This record gives sequence, structure tokens and C-alpha cells, in this order.
Amino acid sequence: MTIRTAVVGYGNIGKYAVEAILASPDLKLAGVVRRQAHKTPELADTPVVTDIDELGSVDVALVCTPTRSVPQYTAALLAKGVNTVDSYDIHGKLVDLRQELDQVARKHNTVAVISAGWDPGTDSLIRAIFSLMAPKGITYTNFGPGMSMGHSVAVRAVEGVDDAVSITVPVGTGIHRRLVYVQLAAGADFESVEQAIKADPYFINDQTEVYQVEDVSQLIDVGHGVAIERKGVSGRTSNQLFKYEMRINNPALTAQIMVACARASVKQKPGAYTMLEIPIIDYLAGDREALLRQLV
Amino acid sequence: MTIRTAVVGYGNIGKYAVEAILASPDLKLAGVVRRQAHKTPELADTPVVTDIDELGSVDVALVCTPTRSVPQYTAALLAKGVNTVDSYDIHGKLVDLRQELDQVARKHNTVAVISAGWDPGTDSLIRAIFSLMAPKGITYTNFGPGMSMGHSVAVRAVEGVDDAVSITVPVGTGIHRRLVYVQLAAGADFESVEQAIKADPYFINDQTEVYQVEDVSQLIDVGHGVAIERKGVSGRTSNQLFKYEMRINNPALTAQIMVACARASVKQKPGAYTMLEIPIIDYLAGDREALLRQLV
Repeated sequence: MTIRTAVVGYGNIGKYAVEAILASPDLKLAGVVRRQAHKTPELADTPVVTDIDELGSVDVALVCTPTRSVPQYTAALLAKGVNTVDSYDIHGKLVDLRQELDQVARKHNTVAVISAGWDPGTDSLIRAIFSLMAPKGITYTNFGPGMSMGHSVAVRAVEGVDDAVSITVPVGTGIHRRLVYVQLAAGADFESVEQAIKADPYFINDQTEVYQVEDVSQLIDVGHGVAIERKGVSGRTSNQLFKYEMRINNPALTAQIMVACARASVKQKPGAYTMLEIPIIDYLAGDREALLRQLV
Repeated sequence: MTIRTAVVGYGNIGKYAVEAILASPDLKLAGVVRRQAHKTPELADTPVVTDIDELGSVDVALVCTPTRSVPQYTAALLAKGVNTVDSYDIHGKLVDLRQELDQVARKHNTVAVISAGWDPGTDSLIRAIFSLMAPKGITYTNFGPGMSMGHSVAVRAVEGVDDAVSITVPVGTGIHRRLVYVQLAAGADFESVEQAIKADPYFINDQTEVYQVEDVSQLIDVGHGVAIERKGVSGRTSNQLFKYEMRINNPALTAQIMVACARASVKQKPGAYTMLEIPIIDYLAGDREALLRQLV
């Protein structure tokens, strides 16, 4: 079975999603849906449309829009009979989104996999595995070094900032330092900008350093990382130590995980799922028993 | 719901399984089944029997017998209407065991979770997650330092060996060194013993060092470790780096994982499962939505 997959939204993640679909043995790229149907050179052989209906039959849509518009796009696609995968990343709201989309998906006999990325996503799987191995204990998730999109956007909204990037640096035990690089607008005062950033709710609780640079674009590197650590208790035995670490291209990893979830979506019953609710084997391409022989 | 759980076999893992059940909020220890029903002091308050039927209704049995007798014990328990969890660890045969037990479990409306330990088991989950994040690439599993049961048993069978332990030491990239400590039988010749060990199929492919000691029991430490590494490709992006590492008490971790699988077993449809085939959330105690809020 070939899974006809569309990419909805063609920003940072969307571009890598196209690559990940083309690299997958069991998925076929149905096309790209974007607000204006203009083609960039790498999409020369790909249908680019403004409405998914123009792509014919689509099994799964990877929703690569900004996270705030995910609920709306996803619900509409599910109602059209298309499975969806999104990387919705607002931790506090995703359980509500799951409930909301579960209703829509069941009604329309479709499957939504939500928050399919690395955090939330595969990091969530790792945290859950650590918990099952040592139910009592503390898990620390340490992010970075790498760009934080949310924090960078918050800085760009500060008056006097022309462009900016915020780098998250792990200090350890779940504590982070923020390094903010700003390119000032003409006539702006660096000290005022620095104070405004440090007082922003995004930064006020973290150690924040602000630096002025000539050209923010020279600092952009989409590499990112995470280190998850747990020391806990198995049964009555303390000092069980676990660590997970990755150093990755951020949008490339997110897109690859979305592709794995597209594959898993066609194996689930109608409804909405987080990655924790799907058997791991369903994310992988290939024959089930061959995979078990290779991985178990 | 409280899951009435029995421990079958009271060796190294069985003792820790009792502790892990007692430490779990949602499991109740139904009793211990062993060949002789004698009680050790820590089992003062626990029913100890030679036949599981004497324990009344049991939901799940943790099969903690030697791995070679797992298939026989497990099939018999499933046929009695009891779910089973084992930590069968013969990698080459476990897919066949799964098929065999799947028939029995479906027929008797029960669930078997097989190869529930850390390798096979949680390490298999990690390897699969690494594969879904970067489908092309190489994964190395590095074991140790820690005792290898299989290798220690092989050395004890060598003529002239009174007692022995074999320690697995990771050299890196999936290559291991074996350190073998032997206590000689009276009159045995160390050099002959050393040569016999190095020629044994268990050791012939690895760098093996043999040492003579006075008392092997002074070296026993049930700590173990693993480091799993993958460098791979997400979509078309190379150099995606992943690493997982743990340092743990080996039987305590195995027992805790078996307890998690006992919990998961009551949430599955009849059949036999490896850990890869069960959603991760099912291994955890507590309310599903509360877990999602906490872990995702």
C-alpha cells in the first residue's frame, strides 16, 4: 500500500516534510497546499495548489502551518475524510486539542495524530519509557543549544528590534540560559531594548543575556539538541540512572517524525492520538515480523 | 481496578518482582509459585505455593523461571486463563515464541507479553524510536560493564572451573570485551582452563581475558549498563545523532519492566505481544489524560 500524502503549509517544516515523504518507501507525495500556489524550483515536479481538493484522493495531510492555526486546519481536513498529522506544540493545550479532534475524527472515520514532533513527540515517548522503568524519581529535560522559535518571535516584537534570534542553552537539571542576539532598528537604543527583553514574560524567569549584532541572519543554524535525564527507583531499588541525548537538524527531524506518524495513522482506528497512544512498531515501514526480528 | 499478580519462579528476578509488585499502586501480590513451597523470611506475609491454582483468581503471572523453560510455563498459564509476562531473552527465537503463544492466548482469551525486560524490551523500544527518527543509518548497542548470565553459565561448564563470572565490557560500536574471573577446582590447571574458555563458542569471537581469583562471590555486583547510539538520516538530512545510556541494577529493572507489562496486559485484546506492539501509555499507572498532561 502506498500512502498518498499531502503537505499543508510550505514554511520551514513543510520543505523538509516534502523531502521526508520523497525519501520514504511507502509514502507518495500527493502535492503541496499553500496560500498562494506559486512554485519554487524544488517543487517543479510537484502539484502545488491552494485547496487540497485539487489533489484528488489524499490519505494523510501533514499540517505544517504555524502552530496556532493547526486546530482549525486539522479539523477541516479530518471532516473532508483526510487523516492528519500535526506538530502542535503548546504543551498546556494539547490534551484539549486531542479531545476536540477526537470527536471530529470519529465522526468522519479519520485519524488525527497530534503533537508529532520531538518535543512534544519522541521526547514524550522517552520520558514515558523512563517512568515505566523507574516510576519514582525526577526527570529533567534540558533543551539546546539551539534556536527557540517562540522566544525569537517574542524578541522580534520588542520595539526597536529589527531582527533577532534567541538561543536556548541548557544549564542542567531543566534550567536554561537564553542568549538573545538582536539587530537594532535605526535609532533604537540598545539598553532600552535589552531591558525590555529581560522584562518580557518569555525571559523574566531565565538568566538572559542580550547581545547586539550587525546581521542576525549570519547566526542562523537549525541544529538543536536535547538531554533528558532521570534518576529513579525500580521497585525498591534506588539509583537507577537513565540518559537520552540527541543533536539534530530540528526541522528535518520534525518532518521525519511527522512522516512516521502519517504511516501509523493508517493503522489506527478512527480518533485522535498522541504519539504515546500508538504502538511503536506502527511508526516503522516494512513487514511487522521482519521488523521484530531486527529490532527486538 | 487492582491487578492480582503472581510471581512464578523465585530466583534472582522473582525476588525483585515481588518488591516491584508491592511498590506498585495498582497491583496486588497474589502469591509466589515455586517448585518447593518453602518460605524465606521476606515472604512471611505472602502465600507461597507449588501450583498457581492454590492462589485463587490471578489476573497476571510474571514468569521468572530460567529463560529456556519460559515457553512451557507460559503456555500452561495462558491455557488456565491467566495473562503472562516473561522476559524471554533468546533474540533469535522470540518471534517464533510470539506466534506460538499468540495461538494459545487467543484460544483462551488471555494476553501474553513476551521478552519484557531491558534487552530485549525497553532497549528494543529505544532502537525502534531511533529508527523512526532517522530511518537510514546504523545503530550500535553497547552492553556493560556488567555480568553476563549466559557467558557466566558457559564458563562454569568448563572442566576445572569451580565458579566463575563473565563481565561484558563495551569497547564501542557494538564490539565487546569479555573479562572472565574463575575460581579453579582442586588440582585444575589455569592455562588449560583459560584456553578452553577462549575456544568456547560464547567467547571465540570476542577479545577475552581470563583471570584466576580466590573467591568469585566477592566480585558479584548486579549493576549493568547499556549505551545505544545511532547516527542517521532524517529525510535527506544526514548527521542526526542519538544516544541512550543507562546504569542500573539489572534484576530490579527487569522486574519493574515486567510489572509495567502486567499492567499493560490487562488493556490489550487477546494475543501475544512484544513491547513494541503496545502503546507506551498502557505501561503506566494512573489516569490516561493526567499522564498525557504530565508526559507529552
